[in-house]
Amino acid sequence: MADLPDKRSAFIDWYLAVVEAAEVTDKRYPVKGLNVWTPYGMAARRNLDAVMIREIEATGSRAVEFPALIPATEFAKEKEHIKGFDAQVYWVTKGGLSDLDIPLVLRPTSETAIYPVFALWVRSHRDLPLNVYQIVNTFRYETKTTRPFLRVREIHFFEEHTCQANEEHATERVRSNRAAFERMAHAFALPYLAIRRPEWDKFPGAYYSIALDIPVGEARTLQIGSIHHYRENFARPYGIRYEDADGTQRYVHQTTFGLSERLIGAILAVHGDQKGAVFPTAIAPYEVVVVPIPAADAGDAPERVAAEVAERLRRHGRRVHLDSSDARPGAKFYRWELTGVPLRLEVGRREAERRSVAAVDRLGRKSTLPIDPLEHEVDLRLAEFDRALFERAREAFRAAFSVARSLEELPGSTTVRLVAWCGDETCGHRIEQAIDGSLLGTPEDPLPFALDPVGACLVCGRTEGARWALAGRPM
Amino acid sequence: MADLPDKRSAFIDWYLAVVEAAEVTDKRYPVKGLNVWTPYGMAARRNLDAVMIREIEATGSRAVEFPALIPATEFAKEKEHIKGFDAQVYWVTKGGLSDLDIPLVLRPTSETAIYPVFALWVRSHRDLPLNVYQIVNTFRYETKTTRPFLRVREIHFFEEHTCQANEEHATERVRSNRAAFERMAHAFALPYLAIRRPEWDKFPGAYYSIALDIPVGEARTLQIGSIHHYRENFARPYGIRYEDADGTQRYVHQTTFGLSERLIGAILAVHGDQKGAVFPTAIAPYEVVVVPIPAADAGDAPERVAAEVAERLRRHGRRVHLDSSDARPGAKFYRWELTGVPLRLEVGRREAERRSVAAVDRLGRKSTLPIDPLEHEVDLRLAEFDRALFERAREAFRAAFSVARSLEELPGSTTVRLVAWCGDETCGHRIEQAIDGSLLGTPEDPLPFALDPVGACLVCGRTEGARWALAGRPM
Repeated sequence: MADLPDKRSAFIDWYLAVVEAAEVTDKRYPVKGLNVWTPYGMAARRNLDAVMIREIEATGSRAVEFPALIPATEFAKEKEHIKGFDAQVYWVTKGGLSDLDIPLVLRPTSETAIYPVFALWVRSHRDLPLNVYQIVNTFRYETKTTRPFLRVREIHFFEEHTCQANEEHATERVRSNRAAFERMAHAFALPYLAIRRPEWDKFPGAYYSIALDIPVGEARTLQIGSIHHYRENFARPYGIRYEDADGTQRYVHQTTFGLSERLIGAILAVHGDQKGAVFPTAIAPYEVVVVPIPAADAGDAPERVAAEVAERLRRHGRRVHLDSSDARPGAKFYRWELTGVPLRLEVGRREAERRSVAAVDRLGRKSTLPIDPLEHEVDLRLAEFDRALFERAREAFRAAFSVARSLEELPGSTTVRLVAWCGDETCGHRIEQAIDGSLLGTPEDPLPFALDPVGACLVCGRTEGARWALAGRPM
Repeated sequence: MADLPDKRSAFIDWYLAVVEAAEVTDKRYPVKGLNVWTPYGMAARRNLDAVMIREIEATGSRAVEFPALIPATEFAKEKEHIKGFDAQVYWVTKGGLSDLDIPLVLRPTSETAIYPVFALWVRSHRDLPLNVYQIVNTFRYETKTTRPFLRVREIHFFEEHTCQANEEHATERVRSNRAAFERMAHAFALPYLAIRRPEWDKFPGAYYSIALDIPVGEARTLQIGSIHHYRENFARPYGIRYEDADGTQRYVHQTTFGLSERLIGAILAVHGDQKGAVFPTAIAPYEVVVVPIPAADAGDAPERVAAEVAERLRRHGRRVHLDSSDARPGAKFYRWELTGVPLRLEVGRREAERRSVAAVDRLGRKSTLPIDPLEHEVDLRLAEFDRALFERAREAFRAAFSVARSLEELPGSTTVRLVAWCGDETCGHRIEQAIDGSLLGTPEDPLPFALDPVGACLVCGRTEGARWALAGRPM
């Protein structure tokens, strides 16, 4: 039971140790970057998926599933797209004992699998909008160092693909996706920024890309999702056209919205602390753990009452684990803190006698709750825990940014930097060199902290077109 | 709106037409045998998965997910297994622009992905039983004609893998799986037979295999699942060992339980009729469709009341579609019959005035239901529909078998045949030749129809060891 590495000074080591301790993945699979979802990790993932499904279906999107294998011929149709991906895809070249006539790509993302079929589904303006999503695994042949949830070779992936009648409707869909993610982020208790990526860093084939970024200490950021407006960029090569009400043939405008298991990584990275993982209630595999504390003179009362408490909360719809293993109470507390359970309820001799439980949430706040009735007390404690967790994350979020007034301030940045930028690519690259990272782009929303009016571009000194942009080091 | 081919005389044509009409899949993906799950098909699949998850988790199994890519070296460890699969796997040989050092197999099933990790998870008798399952897609390079749901190249798959302390516990797990499937089969309204496969047809690497078979007309059968006892056959090559309470190192005994999207195919094949698909309530994407019937003098009353009815049933937890499209009522009835919705509720002028609905279930049974209250009336109609659907399927099931008393009766069989068989492989193959199909094996349970005591083997005439066996033509 060694201490975890220090989160502030040794973030990556701390992250790897927390992932290990939280029992959510097993990295010992014989291929690097292909990890095993353990029962505990799968439970968290299922909860995460449920939030995504709930919020996207509330916007009228329907689940579909397209094949994982894409013929090389379809994959190559959009030129920017193939250029962006061909160095990192897995190729299936053999079926059984013979070579395939047309090699297949294991989907790195599904545009090229879906759009040939969209061309068949969309005929008339009455078929629009077409909003569908799938939750599947995608595959990328990563050559950089892999990290559980953050950079893996088989990626648990959510992707919405839509067809709209025109550019304006597509822009409206982008807005609707942003609102859906805002609701998801509340369930995850994750503050984030929606950032419009610069031209040179947008999704291959996109008209523009909005990234959903999370700061994770020092100047590091984690892109946990993205929303893209494709205009007609894919509709043209794939022939996705419809007949308008007036009889004209038009290309659809498309959008996509992607999220991935990086969200699990972000939840671990943002909420975790020196005691281990911390799951927000909506994602926690177990929302509540009940621990009986045996005592010499208590007989089986603690076990009995603990079992009653667990059963009542289960009936109330909570995910509950009753830890009746033969480990010592201290070891149990330690384990359920490491694995991030939001609320621990202890039942000892005194609690059993008084029909109460001792409650400790994962932020360490203690209270005594009556068993009769217990249900709404637990609801309240969990709601308070989520609020406090979100507030803690928001404080760290606000502290993760600072303004840089000159290029000289950028090297060695320990926060994500706000810089005045004229919009020019050359100036952008100078900023990237200075911070040894990326110009993340321009924020889509007002920032959650006060900012002066923007001044002159940090690089060229022009004021024309200057706007606040963010620079950091994406993981 | 052409008629469907005749189910009895042209089953395959009928099946393909029903799958098409039921809107559950799209076969126009550019690779043969890789089909698209449409929104309607995905909804059925989600309901199917929910039944499987509910029943398997009730037996203490937990969800996991292992990688889809298996290194060739791990894949080759169990000799029978690799022999059984190597002609039908997809090989990933390239990552990005370069060849992989060790080629990867896209999982055709997951023994060889999971067992190297089981060897790490199992240490002590306290780690047993280890019961986990995953719902993933598997891949088989099929060279035979592909058919939606029945023979495809990317297969939606359920697989449980367990480790038990000894052979007896593994046998007990097989029993538990059989009981779980019995409960699932009720939700699917599918009669089936559990059949122990002959030695030469068991799963590659298994000690024995129990197949779950469904007759689908003529002598055809559909294997929709299987349960295998592996004894130590995989534990030895993969080194899955534990320390027993007395300190001895022992190999675990393993079992697996597999089901696939063939269940969707079986539901379509068994329940469908000349009017199209018929979904049992538990699987139906929409349990109820509500159709307003406009009338010249009714104003918007039918639409208004239909919307109210749909909303009430949704709040009651039912999956409801309100068809307020501008198609004519007759076209709507036709479509929702083709797509197999269990219950249609019609609201015309008279119904709106009297606060009632005209109900027609997918078996054509009509009734008038009061709107106040409607909820339990609908529950009742759906329960009666499921009972009648199951009974119809059971009648067809009983009629799908007949006894054959000599080899001469087997050619051209129009039913699955019960034959007396001595258990000898040579005799088994003679039976297979005669029926131009397979000796399916011996039933695990009493058959649902009267049978004489078994006589002498149909082939060799021996009575010693003779038992009833089934012979048919697996699809």
